Amino acid sequence: MLRPALLPYSRTLGRSMSVLAKALQYEHHGEPLDVLQLVEKKVEKPKNKQVLVKILASPINPVDVNIIQGRYPIKPKLPTVAGSEFVGKIIDIGNEVKGLQNGQHVIPLVNTAGAWSTHTIYQEDQLLAVSEKVGLAEAATIYINPCTAYRMLKDFVHLLPGDTVLHNGANSAVGQAVHQLCLAWGFKSIGIVRDRKEIDVLRDQMKKLGASLILTESEIRTTDIFKSGEFRRPKLAFNCVGGKSATELARHLDHHGVMVTYGGMSREPIEVPTGPLIFKDLAFRGFAVSDWHTKNHDKPERTQMFKDLLKLMEEGKFVGPACEMVPLEQFKESAKAALSFEGFTGKKFILDMNN
Amino acid sequence: MLRPALLPYSRTLGRSMSVLAKALQYEHHGEPLDVLQLVEKKVEKPKNKQVLVKILASPINPVDVNIIQGRYPIKPKLPTVAGSEFVGKIIDIGNEVKGLQNGQHVIPLVNTAGAWSTHTIYQEDQLLAVSEKVGLAEAATIYINPCTAYRMLKDFVHLLPGDTVLHNGANSAVGQAVHQLCLAWGFKSIGIVRDRKEIDVLRDQMKKLGASLILTESEIRTTDIFKSGEFRRPKLAFNCVGGKSATELARHLDHHGVMVTYGGMSREPIEVPTGPLIFKDLAFRGFAVSDWHTKNHDKPERTQMFKDLLKLMEEGKFVGPACEMVPLEQFKESAKAALSFEGFTGKKFILDMNN
Repeated sequence: MLRPALLPYSRTLGRSMSVLAKALQYEHHGEPLDVLQLVEKKVEKPKNKQVLVKILASPINPVDVNIIQGRYPIKPKLPTVAGSEFVGKIIDIGNEVKGLQNGQHVIPLVNTAGAWSTHTIYQEDQLLAVSEKVGLAEAATIYINPCTAYRMLKDFVHLLPGDTVLHNGANSAVGQAVHQLCLAWGFKSIGIVRDRKEIDVLRDQMKKLGASLILTESEIRTTDIFKSGEFRRPKLAFNCVGGKSATELARHLDHHGVMVTYGGMSREPIEVPTGPLIFKDLAFRGFAVSDWHTKNHDKPERTQMFKDLLKLMEEGKFVGPACEMVPLEQFKESAKAALSFEGFTGKKFILDMNN
Repeated sequence: MLRPALLPYSRTLGRSMSVLAKALQYEHHGEPLDVLQLVEKKVEKPKNKQVLVKILASPINPVDVNIIQGRYPIKPKLPTVAGSEFVGKIIDIGNEVKGLQNGQHVIPLVNTAGAWSTHTIYQEDQLLAVSEKVGLAEAATIYINPCTAYRMLKDFVHLLPGDTVLHNGANSAVGQAVHQLCLAWGFKSIGIVRDRKEIDVLRDQMKKLGASLILTESEIRTTDIFKSGEFRRPKLAFNCVGGKSATELARHLDHHGVMVTYGGMSREPIEVPTGPLIFKDLAFRGFAVSDWHTKNHDKPERTQMFKDLLKLMEEGKFVGPACEMVPLEQFKESAKAALSFEGFTGKKFILDMNN
């Protein structure tokens, strides 16, 4: 049953109890500012195993912008509603739904377009119920960045407590997730960030999240923290920048070390020197969380991952990225801001539909 | 017992039956022409589990030259006798030797300097007996190049019959081994070579060894053999060149493809584009056979590898690289020739001590 507070965005339409959702839709690829349109879409009452979700919050991720631009390998069928992850509240269920109930908070378990909408219909098995103890910003942003950090820490190298993880773009949302998971799991997170004036403020923020050390790109070039034994040489490095920054990470890798690339902010390729590749037995790998979700849809590892992340979030040991909640109607300003910062300010814009 | 034919190089010295070996020794790293010296070394009669080997043939590998130059991560204790692989004949054994006997051909099972010598002492368990059906050039060169090809084909990707292996430097000794193992195991070997005038002669040579197709570096840039389906997109590529050549191999890799680098002829790093790394889930790995031998010294995989390679050699299905046998005394001319061609002419120089 629709609650009065939801009425402004979900006008009941006669006896069918369908709602009018507001959604950010696009018909052609292009810059979000140019192609996104706020439209109204009729959403029918859920039938059988369907669930009607009132979306509460949905982030504007760099990947969402890239998909809209048509720069991402995933090409949705157009026209489509933008956005890929959210937290929502169940406001109606079909008569065959067994595992979910009205009022529960849910996140999507499928890689699907359409999160930038006030209401949407899912099949019961496409949703995961989450405790209301988990903050909206945390739940809304779990699917891409924390899952990326989680898988990169789990799937490439067997780390032992005290082992070092070295990563650039360390104030990005993935970087923030890496710090927190390293702290939770006993690894040392050494983050590299670009040289900047406010480096001390950033260092403090990142250390509060669990970073063992934050170095600028200048500092990592001359550091002796690995030579001195202050930190173990990293067996695992994460790269979202490319170019010289990636080369610098690789230079510090221990024998048999793996560098996982999950982004390419600099738009420069990674230069791999042949000698260390061969004689230090290094490996250079890539990772795309969207692929991982698709391939491991039914695997217990995936259930376990959500369980682990949500537990840390409930306990307050994992917080969402620094963010600004913005109304759906202000999507143009938000998209512009998200674009101009390219999502690497450490501040994420989250569409707030909780009204 | 020493046979008369061996006497000129192994003068018996009184009752102890020690021999005077001729050996190519160096006291300092440098160019082989400058630092190698032909010296005489007294080799005592073998005791207990020791075996005295008359070396018959030992190749001049690029890696041997690099070790002498001091450019290789393996740094032998100096002074040392150069050379790293050989085939020899047992000419005397200690009284506790059980598994080997006089007259048998043997190859070393240890990564040790000292092959460029007429005689040398090994422990019984450091040698593997090989049939005399195996040619001297084949047996003498099994340890580095065929083992490199064998492991790279076995250890990185699970290939199915009909799968394509793409490799540059395809006329190198490793390249020749790749062609032959691909033919024996049912894979398609597509080799890339540098543009050259005598390309047709080279194509014929490589096809006789088992290459499915030989393309020049110009041809691979524009080929449509993978688009057309004539060949399956490679899941595995081998790189010994680096630079643009490596980028070109990577460009053709199938999803989840692995590029294994075992050399860096061009001395240019490998450029890895971020997009394909992430979204095609590519992996860039390195391989050094010397490390592999050391780490897997006692493993059954190693015994099986030698068994497989020697069987193919006995059956005439695996021939050694095109080579020129040169007397030990002519090492200066041979080292110069090996250096100038950097071992990538498809012709290897083998020191002939079979006299």
